[in-house]
Order: sequence, then structure tokens, then C-alpha cells
Amino acid sequence: MPDVPWLDLAGDVADLAAALVDIPSVSQDEALIADSVESALRAQAPHLEVLRSGNAVLARTTLGRARRVMLAGHLDTVPIAGNVPSRRVTGAGDAEGAQGEVREADLLYGCGTVDMKSGDAVFLHLAATLTAPVHDITLVLYDCEEIAAEYNGLGRIERDLPGWLESDVAVLGEPSDGVIEAGCQGTLRVRLTAEGVRSHSARSWLGVNAVHGLAPVLQRLAGYAPRQVDIDGCVYREGLQAVRITGGVAGNVVPDAASIDVNFRFAPDRTADEALEHVHGVFAGVDAGMEVTDLSPGALPGLAAPAAVELVAAAGGRFRAKYGWTDVARFAARGIPAVNYGPGDPNLAHTRGEFVDTAQIHQVAQVLRSYLTTGVPE
Amino acid sequence: MPDVPWLDLAGDVADLAAALVDIPSVSQDEALIADSVESALRAQAPHLEVLRSGNAVLARTTLGRARRVMLAGHLDTVPIAGNVPSRRVTGAGDAEGAQGEVREADLLYGCGTVDMKSGDAVFLHLAATLTAPVHDITLVLYDCEEIAAEYNGLGRIERDLPGWLESDVAVLGEPSDGVIEAGCQGTLRVRLTAEGVRSHSARSWLGVNAVHGLAPVLQRLAGYAPRQVDIDGCVYREGLQAVRITGGVAGNVVPDAASIDVNFRFAPDRTADEALEHVHGVFAGVDAGMEVTDLSPGALPGLAAPAAVELVAAAGGRFRAKYGWTDVARFAARGIPAVNYGPGDPNLAHTRGEFVDTAQIHQVAQVLRSYLTTGVPE
Repeated sequence: MPDVPWLDLAGDVADLAAALVDIPSVSQDEALIADSVESALRAQAPHLEVLRSGNAVLARTTLGRARRVMLAGHLDTVPIAGNVPSRRVTGAGDAEGAQGEVREADLLYGCGTVDMKSGDAVFLHLAATLTAPVHDITLVLYDCEEIAAEYNGLGRIERDLPGWLESDVAVLGEPSDGVIEAGCQGTLRVRLTAEGVRSHSARSWLGVNAVHGLAPVLQRLAGYAPRQVDIDGCVYREGLQAVRITGGVAGNVVPDAASIDVNFRFAPDRTADEALEHVHGVFAGVDAGMEVTDLSPGALPGLAAPAAVELVAAAGGRFRAKYGWTDVARFAARGIPAVNYGPGDPNLAHTRGEFVDTAQIHQVAQVLRSYLTTGVPE
Repeated sequence: MPDVPWLDLAGDVADLAAALVDIPSVSQDEALIADSVESALRAQAPHLEVLRSGNAVLARTTLGRARRVMLAGHLDTVPIAGNVPSRRVTGAGDAEGAQGEVREADLLYGCGTVDMKSGDAVFLHLAATLTAPVHDITLVLYDCEEIAAEYNGLGRIERDLPGWLESDVAVLGEPSDGVIEAGCQGTLRVRLTAEGVRSHSARSWLGVNAVHGLAPVLQRLAGYAPRQVDIDGCVYREGLQAVRITGGVAGNVVPDAASIDVNFRFAPDRTADEALEHVHGVFAGVDAGMEVTDLSPGALPGLAAPAAVELVAAAGGRFRAKYGWTDVARFAARGIPAVNYGPGDPNLAHTRGEFVDTAQIHQVAQVLRSYLTTGVPE
């Protein structure tokens, strides 16, 4: 192993988060951070079986416990925007404590502080320091989550090392503001294309305007009433939204093609096929071709599973629905209950001003430590 | 004057058209063709007063005739698409003669054959060879017609040398398939912009979709019934067309802005202000901002003017409305009756396969020669 940045896995978990942020790891450039993580685990956590797979690092206990808990997070980030290395901002009276009291704020700024190196730090710290957890632990820190699904490191592990994913409950450290977010909604993207006949705009009766042909598509989108549905106490909210529209050849040409990309976010009680059928129904009779460009099923919350019940209890019984699609769907598809649980406000993810309150890092670490050491809250 | 390609102004006019095509002259790169034209006129047409203005060449007779005829054409072309130098294709039985008989086709292919070096060749040939026309002649061959109006050489001449544009009738050699096309329609472009609120598409209730906001705009465009109007025996046909639509941030974002460019082609009985008022009326009540991006008034046909009557007679009495906007509007705005009259099918303009039937070049040359030498058809 060449010289790599040192990571102190047993120290303060917020310091560990900062150290991870300080190793740039934009998607497809995660070799250095994976080297650091692997090297630190091998040196500081001899109780773990460690495996390197591409730029993912896997580690697990083999204590023969009744249950196995998966702790999974991605190591990559979106492109850096002048926000690496990390910056720590501490000041009195800037934050509100759990009891509503004003307390000293300790904020960590930088690319990946929210999405999701704070979650990675919590998982890495716990896996390295809990030598005798009540549940077996599998740690998977993977690459290429922020880019096209075909590159996703967790997908590669699913194909190459499926045995490593076996577990009774999976915790994905995606930012959830320190609240358990259960399951996830599915996402379907279709491209609707209207065709026409090109002509000079000064002789427009010779043409057929494809942009005008999209009028009924926009009409139906504008009039669409999205559904809300309660599943296991989680309220999912669907949405059908145009995310892109394009058409036009030149300022003096009647365009012969125009298209609109529509994103349907659907509650996990619909299968992928049912979601597609629903969207076909919405646009039935519209004179436009429809092509599916992306389809990922949602994940049912699965909170009834015993391992999930214990985790929710450890988190004080607080949970809610996850709206965005995440890799929990990969676990749900394997029959493994899976939740999103990590520090950081998801609305700050991918922003230049991304920051996390270090108190939330410590809070998530404490809940999970309690869950993994006693099975119930401390 | 440096060495420039030689142009034989007194020879066959189709050969002259080919020679002009063989001098590349994409907009803003017309120095060489202007040098050639200027040099040829000075050497071969000593009866003309010649003036160079930028990359435009002006020439005129000063015979003191009762009327002055303007022959105007642009020297520039759209970008070359592998179609320079010109190519001559001659074959038996491929074309139909004026009497419907099958005759030998003689086609000239290349960039600018239609738009509009064949018209330029006719004008250049006539101005250089008619030493004693019955009307005084002004020849204006100008630059930069195919790009933004601010660069238009005729506009520059209007500002700098307005005296050179004085005339009783203007013939613009834009391709009109050898038929006089009178006046032109106006053109108005507006950009309609809808605003919204950006959000993640998985939490779309937090956003307002600007693309959906364009639904009523497309609805009104799709339902618009354009007007036809007869002016001086010319039927103008209006049209209101979306020429571009755009909106979208990313596949998972509710877009906060979307816009549509609409082109209104209006008959010359509407002023520019009336055209704008009409479009405001079409979109009245729609929640979208409107910005005017382009507005050029049309040109009334003006065929009642005596010089125009004679020209129409010389062309066998055939004429029709011009739908597209052309520089005739600049002459009409100065009170000069102006027509479009040139060889070539305008539908082939700006195409890779642009070609002109050389018979049409000869026909236009013959009509104009007759008009300029006898005032009536030969």
C-alpha cells in the first residue's frame, strides 16, 4: 500500500468525518480514499475481515450472532466546488439543542459533509471500535453512487460478491437529518416525443409544429393530481413532473420534433410495471411516442421486521417516509428491510455551501452504538 | 488591388453565376468576392460610377433618365457544406421547358447558387453590359445579409450612403423561382418565460413547475387560426409558430424556468406595433413574461407604382405575395416600391444540395434586359 492519508478510526467521529472530506473522492476517482479506508481498517481493526473490491472496501465481524446488520455508504461525492478541504465553524449561540436550549454550534463545511462522509465516518468508527457488538456487522463503503447507475459500486458488489450483502437489516447512511427514513419511492423517467413536419416559419402551412403537438402533454401534467399513501405509518407523496422540455431548429423554422422528459416518483406500493402502466394511462390518446429512459422500483418500508423494530426503538421511535430514491431499494429487492439513516440535511446535499452540524454526527453515532451494543437505547 | 479571381461580366450569365459561387463568401468573409466584383466593374464597365463601402460594391449609371431602377443583392452565403466549388450537371430530358416540352437540363449546384449568386450574376451582367439603358441603374451588391441584422451591409449603406439608395423601384434578387414576389410579410419574435420554484422532483410539492406553466401558451398556439389577406392581388398568409422551447435543470429537479420563442409572420397591412398588439392579445391572461427579441415590419407590395407596373408587364404579368421577410422592407420603409425577383427555388436555399436551373438564370436576365432596354417585354 503506498503512502495514504492517515485516518484515526477510534478518535472523535466528527474529526473522522472531516478527515474523509479532506480526501477528494469525486465519482470514479475514489482510489485514494479507498486506500486510506482499507489501510486504516487493516491496521486498527484486526477483528474485522477486510476485502477490497475495486474502489469499494468491505469489512465484517464473524461472531456468529443471531442477526447481521449492514452499514452501507458511498465514498464518492459530486464534483468539488471550491469546498475542499473541510472547514470547521464554531460559535456560541448559533444552534438549538435537542431540548430547545441555545448551545454552541459546531458546524463542518465541505463537499461530502452531508452526502455522505459524515454517515461513512459513523459507520467506519463503529465497525472499527465495537469489537463485540450484539449483532454481527457488515460494513460496505462503495464507489460511484453519484453517477449513472451502471457504475454504482454497490451494484457491482451485488453481482460479484452477493454473499457479502446478506443481512437482516440494512442501514444506508444517506443524509436524513438524523431521522430514520424508511423505504424509498420509485422513480420512472419517460421521454415523450412529438413529431411534425419542418417548414420555413414564413410558410408555416407547409409544416406541422411538433412543439404545438406537446400541448396536450403539458395540459395533462398541469392538471395531474398526485396521490398520497400511508404504508406502515409512513406517508409517501407521489409526483409527476416535467424535468426537461426541448424543441426547435432555428428562429425561422417550424420544428419537426420536440420532446419532454417526465419524472414519475411513485410510492413503493406500486411495482415498476404498475408505475409505467399508470403513466401510460395519464398520457393515453396523446399523439406522442413514449420511451422509458429510467426505471427504478421503490422500497417498501419493511419496518415490521424484528431487526428494524429494534433499530426504530433505539432511535426513539421516530421515523418517516423517504421520498427520494436511494440504494435501499437494492436491499429491499433482496428481501432485506432497509432504512436511510444519516447525519445532515438532505436539502444541502450537492450544494456549494454543504455543511453538517457535528452534534447530529454524534447523535447518529450514539443511537447506532446503543443499537449495536445493547439492542435498545442507552 | 491584389490578384483576385477574374470575372467575365460580359460572357454567359450562368458562367458568371458559377464564377461567383467559386469564390467562397460566407458572411463576414466577403473581402475577396467584393475585391473581384469591384475590380471587374472598374476594368469592364467604365460607364459606371463605382464605389466600395466595406465589403459592399456600389455602381450606377448617371444618364439623367426619368427613372432609376435599383438592382440589389447580397454577396454573402450561409456556411459552406462541402458544396463549393460549383458543379455543373447537364443531361437530356431531365427538365420541363416553359411550354411543357422535355428539354435538356443544365443545373448549377453549389452554395449560393440559389441564395443568391445567380441573382447577383444577372444584376452584375446587366449593369456592366447595358451602357444605354432606358432607366438609370443602381447596382448594390452587399455583405452580411445572412447573419444578425446589425451586420447587414444594406443597413450600413442606408446609414452611411442614403443617397445611393434613391430609386423609383427596387429589385432584390432573392430567389423567387423566377416569379416576381411583391412586398414581404413582417416578422416578430417574442420569448415567453414562465417562472416557478425549483425543488427536488422527489419532493415536488415544494416546487412549482415552470414547464407546466407553459401549458396555456402551447394550448393557445395549437388553437390559433391564422389570417389570410389579399392586398393588391397578392394573398399573404400569416402564421404564429413556436420555434423553440426549452426548460429543465436536471433529471431530478422541478424546473424553475422555462421559455418558448414564438415567431409571428404578419401580413404587411399590419404595422409592427399592431403585430405586437395582436400577439399580446393572443396570450392575454397567460402567466408568463413576454419579451420582444426581434421585430421587422413587412413591406406592402406597392405594385401600383408606374415603375413597378412596367416591371410586372415585362415579366408577363405574373406576380405573387412574398411570405418571408427580405430586405425589400428596407426600400418599402423609404417609400420605394420593391419586389423580390431572382432565379432559384427558395426552398433549396441554405440546403446542402442547393442548385439552380441555369434556364431560370437566363430567363430572369432576359426579362430584366427587356425592361431596362425597352421598358416592355421583347
